[in-house]
Amino acid sequence: MPHTPASQPSNDQLATKAQAWSALFSEPMSDLVKRYTSSVFFDKRLWQADIAGSLAHADMLAAQGIISGDDLAAIERGMAQITQEIEAGQFDWKLDLEDVHLNIEARLTQLVGDAGKRLHTGRSRNDQVATDVRLWLRGEIDLIDGLLRELQLALVEVAEKNVEVILPGFTHLQVAQPVSFAHHLLAYVEMFARDAERMRDARRRVNVLPLGSAALAGTTYPLDRERVARTLGMEGVCQNSLDGVSDRDFAIEFTAAASLCMVHVSRLSEELIIWMSQNFGFIRIADRFTTGSSIMPQKKNPDVPELARGKTGRVVGHLMGLITLMKGQPLAYNKDNQEDKEPLFDTVDTLKDTLRIFAEMIGGQANPATGAKEGGITVNAEAMRAAAQKGYATATDLADYLVKKGLPFRDAHETVAHAVKAATTHGVDLSELPLAVLQGFHPAIGKDVFDALSLQGSLCARGTLGGTAPAQVRAQLARHRARLAA
Amino acid sequence: MPHTPASQPSNDQLATKAQAWSALFSEPMSDLVKRYTSSVFFDKRLWQADIAGSLAHADMLAAQGIISGDDLAAIERGMAQITQEIEAGQFDWKLDLEDVHLNIEARLTQLVGDAGKRLHTGRSRNDQVATDVRLWLRGEIDLIDGLLRELQLALVEVAEKNVEVILPGFTHLQVAQPVSFAHHLLAYVEMFARDAERMRDARRRVNVLPLGSAALAGTTYPLDRERVARTLGMEGVCQNSLDGVSDRDFAIEFTAAASLCMVHVSRLSEELIIWMSQNFGFIRIADRFTTGSSIMPQKKNPDVPELARGKTGRVVGHLMGLITLMKGQPLAYNKDNQEDKEPLFDTVDTLKDTLRIFAEMIGGQANPATGAKEGGITVNAEAMRAAAQKGYATATDLADYLVKKGLPFRDAHETVAHAVKAATTHGVDLSELPLAVLQGFHPAIGKDVFDALSLQGSLCARGTLGGTAPAQVRAQLARHRARLAA
Amino acid sequence: MPHTPASQPSNDQLATKAQAWSALFSEPMSDLVKRYTSSVFFDKRLWQADIAGSLAHADMLAAQGIISGDDLAAIERGMAQITQEIEAGQFDWKLDLEDVHLNIEARLTQLVGDAGKRLHTGRSRNDQVATDVRLWLRGEIDLIDGLLRELQLALVEVAEKNVEVILPGFTHLQVAQPVSFAHHLLAYVEMFARDAERMRDARRRVNVLPLGSAALAGTTYPLDRERVARTLGMEGVCQNSLDGVSDRDFAIEFTAAASLCMVHVSRLSEELIIWMSQNFGFIRIADRFTTGSSIMPQKKNPDVPELARGKTGRVVGHLMGLITLMKGQPLAYNKDNQEDKEPLFDTVDTLKDTLRIFAEMIGGQANPATGAKEGGITVNAEAMRAAAQKGYATATDLADYLVKKGLPFRDAHETVAHAVKAATTHGVDLSELPLAVLQGFHPAIGKDVFDALSLQGSLCARGTLGGTAPAQVRAQLARHRARLAA
Amino acid sequence: MPHTPASQPSNDQLATKAQAWSALFSEPMSDLVKRYTSSVFFDKRLWQADIAGSLAHADMLAAQGIISGDDLAAIERGMAQITQEIEAGQFDWKLDLEDVHLNIEARLTQLVGDAGKRLHTGRSRNDQVATDVRLWLRGEIDLIDGLLRELQLALVEVAEKNVEVILPGFTHLQVAQPVSFAHHLLAYVEMFARDAERMRDARRRVNVLPLGSAALAGTTYPLDRERVARTLGMEGVCQNSLDGVSDRDFAIEFTAAASLCMVHVSRLSEELIIWMSQNFGFIRIADRFTTGSSIMPQKKNPDVPELARGKTGRVVGHLMGLITLMKGQPLAYNKDNQEDKEPLFDTVDTLKDTLRIFAEMIGGQANPATGAKEGGITVNAEAMRAAAQKGYATATDLADYLVKKGLPFRDAHETVAHAVKAATTHGVDLSELPLAVLQGFHPAIGKDVFDALSLQGSLCARGTLGGTAPAQVRAQLARHRARLAA
Repeated sequence: MPHTPASQPSNDQLATKAQAWSALFSEPMSDLVKRYTSSVFFDKRLWQADIAGSLAHADMLAAQGIISGDDLAAIERGMAQITQEIEAGQFDWKLDLEDVHLNIEARLTQLVGDAGKRLHTGRSRNDQVATDVRLWLRGEIDLIDGLLRELQLALVEVAEKNVEVILPGFTHLQVAQPVSFAHHLLAYVEMFARDAERMRDARRRVNVLPLGSAALAGTTYPLDRERVARTLGMEGVCQNSLDGVSDRDFAIEFTAAASLCMVHVSRLSEELIIWMSQNFGFIRIADRFTTGSSIMPQKKNPDVPELARGKTGRVVGHLMGLITLMKGQPLAYNKDNQEDKEPLFDTVDTLKDTLRIFAEMIGGQANPATGAKEGGITVNAEAMRAAAQKGYATATDLADYLVKKGLPFRDAHETVAHAVKAATTHGVDLSELPLAVLQGFHPAIGKDVFDALSLQGSLCARGTLGGTAPAQVRAQLARHRARLAA
Repeated sequence: MPHTPASQPSNDQLATKAQAWSALFSEPMSDLVKRYTSSVFFDKRLWQADIAGSLAHADMLAAQGIISGDDLAAIERGMAQITQEIEAGQFDWKLDLEDVHLNIEARLTQLVGDAGKRLHTGRSRNDQVATDVRLWLRGEIDLIDGLLRELQLALVEVAEKNVEVILPGFTHLQVAQPVSFAHHLLAYVEMFARDAERMRDARRRVNVLPLGSAALAGTTYPLDRERVARTLGMEGVCQNSLDGVSDRDFAIEFTAAASLCMVHVSRLSEELIIWMSQNFGFIRIADRFTTGSSIMPQKKNPDVPELARGKTGRVVGHLMGLITLMKGQPLAYNKDNQEDKEPLFDTVDTLKDTLRIFAEMIGGQANPATGAKEGGITVNAEAMRAAAQKGYATATDLADYLVKKGLPFRDAHETVAHAVKAATTHGVDLSELPLAVLQGFHPAIGKDVFDALSLQGSLCARGTLGGTAPAQVRAQLARHRARLAA
Repeated sequence: MPHTPASQPSNDQLATKAQAWSALFSEPMSDLVKRYTSSVFFDKRLWQADIAGSLAHADMLAAQGIISGDDLAAIERGMAQITQEIEAGQFDWKLDLEDVHLNIEARLTQLVGDAGKRLHTGRSRNDQVATDVRLWLRGEIDLIDGLLRELQLALVEVAEKNVEVILPGFTHLQVAQPVSFAHHLLAYVEMFARDAERMRDARRRVNVLPLGSAALAGTTYPLDRERVARTLGMEGVCQNSLDGVSDRDFAIEFTAAASLCMVHVSRLSEELIIWMSQNFGFIRIADRFTTGSSIMPQKKNPDVPELARGKTGRVVGHLMGLITLMKGQPLAYNKDNQEDKEPLFDTVDTLKDTLRIFAEMIGGQANPATGAKEGGITVNAEAMRAAAQKGYATATDLADYLVKKGLPFRDAHETVAHAVKAATTHGVDLSELPLAVLQGFHPAIGKDVFDALSLQGSLCARGTLGGTAPAQVRAQLARHRARLAA
Repeated sequence: MPHTPASQPSNDQLATKAQAWSALFSEPMSDLVKRYTSSVFFDKRLWQADIAGSLAHADMLAAQGIISGDDLAAIERGMAQITQEIEAGQFDWKLDLEDVHLNIEARLTQLVGDAGKRLHTGRSRNDQVATDVRLWLRGEIDLIDGLLRELQLALVEVAEKNVEVILPGFTHLQVAQPVSFAHHLLAYVEMFARDAERMRDARRRVNVLPLGSAALAGTTYPLDRERVARTLGMEGVCQNSLDGVSDRDFAIEFTAAASLCMVHVSRLSEELIIWMSQNFGFIRIADRFTTGSSIMPQKKNPDVPELARGKTGRVVGHLMGLITLMKGQPLAYNKDNQEDKEPLFDTVDTLKDTLRIFAEMIGGQANPATGAKEGGITVNAEAMRAAAQKGYATATDLADYLVKKGLPFRDAHETVAHAVKAATTHGVDLSELPLAVLQGFHPAIGKDVFDALSLQGSLCARGTLGGTAPAQVRAQLARHRARLAA
């Protein structure tokens, strides 16, 4: 590979990667090394962020008099063409040019000559890549925020139709107390609302500008970094150049938030799967979210919830990978950091797909003709109620009844345990024991006990803030509607 | 174990764990099962939170007329005595009573009779334990916030003394550009400042009250949950009872933030260890943070940074453990959740110890006689400067110099690469090449090039926001001082 | 801390930790540093391995003429007394002496003088601690091997009583095909058998001697390392001293095997929990493995399976911690390695407790009077059968029936799908459709179809190797009995 | 989507995925669901294993009289054509057909009609996919075994040339004792040898046949599973059908072994990076494994070792992902399992690329002209020796010298500490202290002490098994050569 003389580098200087590094190198890279170290085939998705960052940088360079107005115009013209080429699928991505940044810059120089070469003044790939990833991730967080809202709305809509539907609330997967199905769904709304909050907190730390940190120590050019930040809509500027180029906290923090969100999805999935099992039969999901079996003709398997539960491992694995990556790295930038992209990209893709598919699987799709949502989950209220009749779900209500008659709670609890033991022996529910038998456990028990022992009575009695009583659930629904409309 | 008749449970009813669950159980637990399922030997550290939560609950029960003023007074009296007993080390923690909550309640009932039994009215262990962990963790986060501040101050103090000390900034552990040692330390201040921010964000989600969620569905008693939240200084109330008892997001979020903080510690440790290696010799740490060898008499090993680097794995392991724990759990409370405590407790302990020891190891201890800090790291400025002279740290400055003479950056970069190649061949630094030789690479080079090629010149030239120039570093130091004093 | 003159070190020289490192150190460690760097409070469990290793080392030193016979006798005498003191709980473990090794050596020197000081000839703490951990872990693996055998036997015993009991086999938690409950349990026997195999593979790599690697480079004394290995029953000698002192592969490999074993336990736990849920009601476990609720008097919660499922996270967290610990460590020993012990110890404890408790929970305990096992899981065969009648579990059998009549499998599958659709519409099982209706789907269907459609017929038809037919299951039971008796 | 009548399904029945599941489904899947649940774009790499498995299955079906000889011939003919199409890049992979298995089967049926439909007799996708993954992974393990051998050979070759080259052995990254550079490299040979052993242990558990487990319960056809195992070269047959379709232990065990191997690579990388840092300067690696900087013209960064260190996180993340995936899954097959493939595939790719690139980076490439290896690491023996002179690397030798003169080791250690303190004060090495000064520390010191204090003397003295003395290192080299030639 003969080098052109130093005084006359050609406009095609960046035509291969090694040339970007200069005369210092005496041999070309092997193909395996190229493949091992290149990132263009996964980082090209950053192209829009890369161009936006470059334009903001060029605008500032011109404003500061570091490049001329003509150079800026040439760069803007070149970038417009590159944008067009990429959007049209005509851009020729080259492995030899290693990454998205060099690919775009090389093409720019080809198109506009020396102006393209001047673009890199006062910046380095280290701060450029950090800027690109942050810009891109900020946009993705905003999309995720919207998807989390959609999913919460879907849950709220289904909940609104099921306030009076009673299912057995479980602890330890044992029947505990009757709860409103709406109340149960709203527990997930709380989780996804927290996820959205965490995403917004993470966004503040993502949306900070490293550009101007240069390779690691800042630059000798009189940059106006705050202007660039303003142009790009960023909330601040990295205050330390060494930190600016090496910090990947934002990727880890985002992936941790995504992992928690996927843990919530996995919990909901577990419930959907159990609820769809024939022994529960509480719900059905639309056929298009299920698959059959190549051997068992009767099967409709809840593939989507199962895959989502499985994909939790994938995202958690990425979190662990990213943490392991950063552990023990000295300052400033090390090549290890290139390994941040694939896990981050896959986390974003997995989370977005999962949220979108869950919103539709739960809430259904708007029928274009009627505007009504169709095809969400189908609720079998009868199966839920039947299950709630098992397992002495109102035993706590009997204890509370006795407390109101004057017993200390611990004594009431013990008394009811004896009653449950007797009911179990006879294979009946508490509400099926005759009054006389109940009174044998405690003389204070009166006829009104049967109100406490009914599912409906039990449900309505839990009306304090956060409880499962329909009135309370309706108040929560109103709160969520208002919050999500904001 | 003969049961007392249902109508007359004794005040010692809670004397063993099985009795707390009632007549329903026909056999005692084996010792292994007791040990496997009990938590009292690790959760007793929650005792203060448990008592605070109980007192706030009792206060509200009385205000709402659910228990009498006499009962409240009895509970307060009993709790005062229990507090005294625990602080004096005289409290008899019993494995049979499974956890901190039953231990305290059993003792209370022993001390004040029926009033103690009434305390549990309208609550469950499920919401009680969730409340206790949140209260305790809130306090620990406040301590950690203070420790993060101490560590930042220690770094700032050492930085203030080393603004003009030049060390080689590395990328890829290869000499890159000269940086101020203060600037390097301030990169870590940025990291720990972000950690503190994340801790404060997490605190908002920790400091929410589950109490009143009862077992899972809310309660039939007319509780005033917002009063309890106010009494306990909490910012809000869990709005959904199922979520309230089962949510462990806050533990995972905290542990993720702690993991990131430990990753920062591990990076700093890596650098301290490399800097102390004889081939660097940049710093020394005080003897009390090092250990010797049982076989090699000459050794002083940087044990504390190494252990801290190792303990990163420990905290990251806890994060992984907690996520795995929650993955796929159906609502509401499952016993799996008990496994949240040991990783959370150990994370808090490890993080607090590590931050405290690092603040002192870096910044030293105040000498009580003089008030001055002593025994922090010792800086070998000469070794740093010598290292910065290796590796052509000012090559970028030569390129920037050429750009200012009119070359496009990419061409200047290529030209300098040729100069470095020549200097390497002759085994000299760029600044040691004669002017004539330098001009051979480009005729625009003049005598003033040697200013650009000096370490001092290179350092001072990087004066934009976030750069390593001493003036800029001093501005950052002032900003941090103001921020940390707030 | 005044040092005794170099020529006259006292026998109490090791009385504090810093003294073990010598005159080089100018200040004592602070208490926090001591606590941070000490390991004696968790590594003292290695005391037997430490003494065994020391005795084997001393025996070899004497055989090689490096120490005298009198010294050996003194060391053996001293160690006998130390053993007695530790067993009697009278040994005074000192934090100041940092770890189990220095504690024992210091006491030895106190007891037998110079002979004790000679024991450390030709070894270092680096190879000593590596040897101790390996010896200890080898013993624990043998215990775990026994516990895995017990658990397999418990599963086999319950299986032997349930060969003909039919439950619905699930895929996707949807009813798939009828299976023998014994067959289902034997799937777990396969898993635990693999775990035992993996433990034995790991044991080969654990049972190798690092002693003689000294600090990192070997030693100048003419040691006979193979003699020490033989004395300790080890299978070989670490062939490279740098690797010998720094290798922690064996700990990671063991913890990975333990994690897989816990994953199997978590799967079994998930099933036990689902089977105990009222909507399944397939089994009960004895009361002593369950707990009640402080608020809901009717509850019996499957605490042990839930905790075991939760503890999977704990062990997996340790694996992650250990890997993170070792990542990127340069050779040879670094203090980070001290952090290997707590996760390793806790992994061993958790795994052993879990296996023991599961063996008893599944299989019960031997009644000392009768020798019969009592108190294992109780099987509700009727509930299992009823569940198998739901979900068209024999649809595949109808397809196979059609294939035997000449249809290609894919066509038969499609035909049966139509039949299932019809049966669903009518709310009946396939076996409840009249022959005429069935023939409407395919004319080849004859009266014998009802044999294929019965649970019993379906079960018995799957008789190939590994299938669920009772005859095949009995053959597997015989194989396992023979294997486990070996 | 109108269905063809049940009695006349067309040969294009599998043309879309939903059709493979039958008439039971009332609506097509949306595109997102297709993308979410499909695997064909990553599992198509299993095509060879899929065809091999199908051919072995068909061969057995024919031998058992389940399909005709004509059917077998047709299947073989069809598969030969499909093989050709795939190899020629002409096979039309369809997302609609979900996975590699349905794609191939659909094409087969298109090509050979009913014979193709009969291929699936007695098997299910559940056992088919498990078989394919195992067959594929077995082949990859064999490739990895070869790559591990190449890497060990490369290390051995470099070691053979550097037996007498002395570098400072480090513990805690502090100079400890002089070691042979060959000895240091052989520590990694030990690690990679253990990795190969673990891979072979894992292979035994990978190489077992699930086929014949069918969907989960075995099959009603008289399969000869052991014949299929023999045809495929597998060592055994899964003995339990439920376990056969759901077991993913082998994937986790392999990924754990791969993680350990990557941890070893990360440790070697850390050392290469430190050794290449200008303050060490121990080695250089060839330019083609390094990259430059877009801003700093002087840079040659060790990108490959850094990326490899970073990729450790990637593989460890996959391990965690897989474990999380399987945790808590009930039997038998769940769709979660589909998520096993991408992490497994990426682990294999990453490990293979890394091993290949490291073998060449360390050992160089054979020059086709001369057959000699060129372009491996370049050793700077002088820099290594100079570093070994720092840090009192022979202090232990002085202690050992004193022990040979009769001092107990602990006393000798203390005496030498005083000598080191004095040497430090004077800024000289121990060997530079005059004899008289040394004798001041202990009168037994004679002129021969200077042999012990030389690097060469220290090195040669450590000649026991596993030590660093050149004779011992040569013996180890011979052992490795013999072992690797086997």
